[in-house]
Amino acid sequence: LVSKLPDVGTSIFTVMTQLAQECGAINLAQGFPDYDPPQALTEALARHAQTNGHQQYAPMPGLLRLRELISEKTAQHYHVPAPDPVTEITVTSGATEALYAVLAAVVRPGDEVIVLEPAYDLYGPAIRLQGGIPVYVSLRAPTFRPDWNEVAAALSPSTRLIMLNSPHNPTGAVLTPADLAQLAELLRPTPTLVLSDEVYEHMVYDGQQHHSVLQQPELAERAFVLSSFGKTYHATGWKVGYCIAPPALTAELRRIHQFLTFSVSTPTQHALADVLGDATHYQTLPAFYQHKRDLFADLMRSTGFDLLPTPGAYFQVARYDRLSSADDYTFAQRLTREAGVAVVPVSAFYHHTQNQGLVRFCFAKREETLLSAAERLQRFG
Amino acid sequence: LVSKLPDVGTSIFTVMTQLAQECGAINLAQGFPDYDPPQALTEALARHAQTNGHQQYAPMPGLLRLRELISEKTAQHYHVPAPDPVTEITVTSGATEALYAVLAAVVRPGDEVIVLEPAYDLYGPAIRLQGGIPVYVSLRAPTFRPDWNEVAAALSPSTRLIMLNSPHNPTGAVLTPADLAQLAELLRPTPTLVLSDEVYEHMVYDGQQHHSVLQQPELAERAFVLSSFGKTYHATGWKVGYCIAPPALTAELRRIHQFLTFSVSTPTQHALADVLGDATHYQTLPAFYQHKRDLFADLMRSTGFDLLPTPGAYFQVARYDRLSSADDYTFAQRLTREAGVAVVPVSAFYHHTQNQGLVRFCFAKREETLLSAAERLQRFG
Ligand SMILES: CSCCC(=O)C(=O)O
Ligand SMILES: CSCCC(=O)C(=O)O
Repeated sequence: LVSKLPDVGTSIFTVMTQLAQECGAINLAQGFPDYDPPQALTEALARHAQTNGHQQYAPMPGLLRLRELISEKTAQHYHVPAPDPVTEITVTSGATEALYAVLAAVVRPGDEVIVLEPAYDLYGPAIRLQGGIPVYVSLRAPTFRPDWNEVAAALSPSTRLIMLNSPHNPTGAVLTPADLAQLAELLRPTPTLVLSDEVYEHMVYDGQQHHSVLQQPELAERAFVLSSFGKTYHATGWKVGYCIAPPALTAELRRIHQFLTFSVSTPTQHALADVLGDATHYQTLPAFYQHKRDLFADLMRSTGFDLLPTPGAYFQVARYDRLSSADDYTFAQRLTREAGVAVVPVSAFYHHTQNQGLVRFCFAKREETLLSAAERLQRFG
Repeated sequence: LVSKLPDVGTSIFTVMTQLAQECGAINLAQGFPDYDPPQALTEALARHAQTNGHQQYAPMPGLLRLRELISEKTAQHYHVPAPDPVTEITVTSGATEALYAVLAAVVRPGDEVIVLEPAYDLYGPAIRLQGGIPVYVSLRAPTFRPDWNEVAAALSPSTRLIMLNSPHNPTGAVLTPADLAQLAELLRPTPTLVLSDEVYEHMVYDGQQHHSVLQQPELAERAFVLSSFGKTYHATGWKVGYCIAPPALTAELRRIHQFLTFSVSTPTQHALADVLGDATHYQTLPAFYQHKRDLFADLMRSTGFDLLPTPGAYFQVARYDRLSSADDYTFAQRLTREAGVAVVPVSAFYHHTQNQGLVRFCFAKREETLLSAAERLQRFG
């Protein structure tokens, strides 16, 4: 059997988490909190797990009650017309499934897909599995904001899709309304679609806002917009996300979703529906995470790392060239083994894993965890 | 946007369940129980939903503890060497995800995949989405057992995979050790792989046994074998299944799984691990379901339907030609609307949905449900 992805190994997140466990390192590599979801949510799951009739298949597009609440939340939070729960919202097995399903739904052999790099590790392989061709446009340190002229140059008559991710993993870069307007102008004469991965939508700092593609009407009418309850509710292990897209795009997504996982955990969807109406939780997230970002940055000042700006998401990217001349991957392994702090090499977010001299720390951790990790890093150098 | 699956509509299971709800019909269409999982299991999910640290990403291949228990169960139940939990077992978002992931992992453009028809509705589209070519071999009423000469004739140098499903949905047909031996002989000179969908493994009746592909060593070494906790534990809405395959095949499956859903609900995996060690539940399933099958068949004797044999699974296929000359789909709709009992047209399990004069009833229902449904069907004719 010849592999269809011969150059793709085990996901870097799995590799680094395993190494962290082997070394007893503090895991700031894989992006997940070391705290639990809100108690109202875990209690709701406990309740629905024991509710008669809530244990069988949910409707294929998701529980209607949950989709209705997603619609209301979206309208209120972004001041946009409420997406139609019946024809425009689909609940998926995490944003991961939504990403894969959208690519499977719209990318055909030979289609080009523009990927702004660094990019989440699944984008490239998932495009290639559809016979698509990833066309990479570089985001440049330290701000990693897109140069729309370069995007314009990458557009071709074969461009089926452009993939956006704001707030951005790993760099935290946040797109502005001006970015979205420029992209809208670029795409106006084309049939190119947009896949907007907005899973860190509630993690934007310093008084700034997340600007959703849903708020740019010209983009919204050709976009799949993804979010993740795992990220928003500190429940990455629950694997529930969703996709908002116009009816014609949603119909294509569901054609795939129904064969890819069919439906999503019923008790878990009920539990999420029980808490989604209360905006307090996600309204307090920016302050909650900004505090962690700032604490971690303060602690890191007495190390040899140079921190890049982090306007959003829950990752801190840092230069380590004062500490080592090794490549990202080797350095990330050394840090895990020798300092006892696991990180992700930023090169893992590049095709051909070009070395970047950067590593990524996840700061979605309790203060005590951030303190211990920083202590270890201070001792390291 | 031109659809990649222009001839594929909404899954028949979704369509019929929606129609059932609109009509207030008893839903014997979509395959799911109208009773709950064992209490020990729902209590375990409630417990793990509230256990600190059980709400974040599970390991990509599944919780090790659950994989170890799957390994032990498999060895004990099938008297086979224990599959290696680390390299041979992967937990998936239902058997559905496993099916799709296996196809995405091994089928390349131009590859042929043998499908024994009638077949579960996702097989054909999921093959075509990989650029593969489904090659259909008919199973013939009333027993729907494969004719291995026809399978031999369908094999070509391009045959990448053959898909098996025993006990069979919709017909309940069960493969024998002789079937598996014949297939092993056919495949011996070929590199063709096997995908064996065994989600109804614990539903075989009349003192017969399910024979797993894992018990046929020559097939096992080239096979992905799938099962479903949803089916075995009356928890179709929990969406947890698994795949057992040799290390080289498992490696390819995981390359896809990590990008398709990454991992499966952590609290749900913990809950399943808590109960899987106790064999009593699945050892009592054959008697539990045989009773339902026999009750339903008895009740149906005073209707105009002619029942086909049901050696396994939880579906009863029936001829309706004494009641109507309509096609399956029209008749299934009429039955839903006029009799108040929703069924699945067996034609939906055929490419080009050729009419079969057959409908499928799911008998995974409480006695009172089966009694009410039968009463309605008796009144209908
Ligand atoms: C699915 S594991 C990876 C989690 C994550 O989003 C990240 O670490 O970037
Ligand atoms: C995923 S919904 C279909 C359930 C099922 O297996 C069937 O009804 O055949």
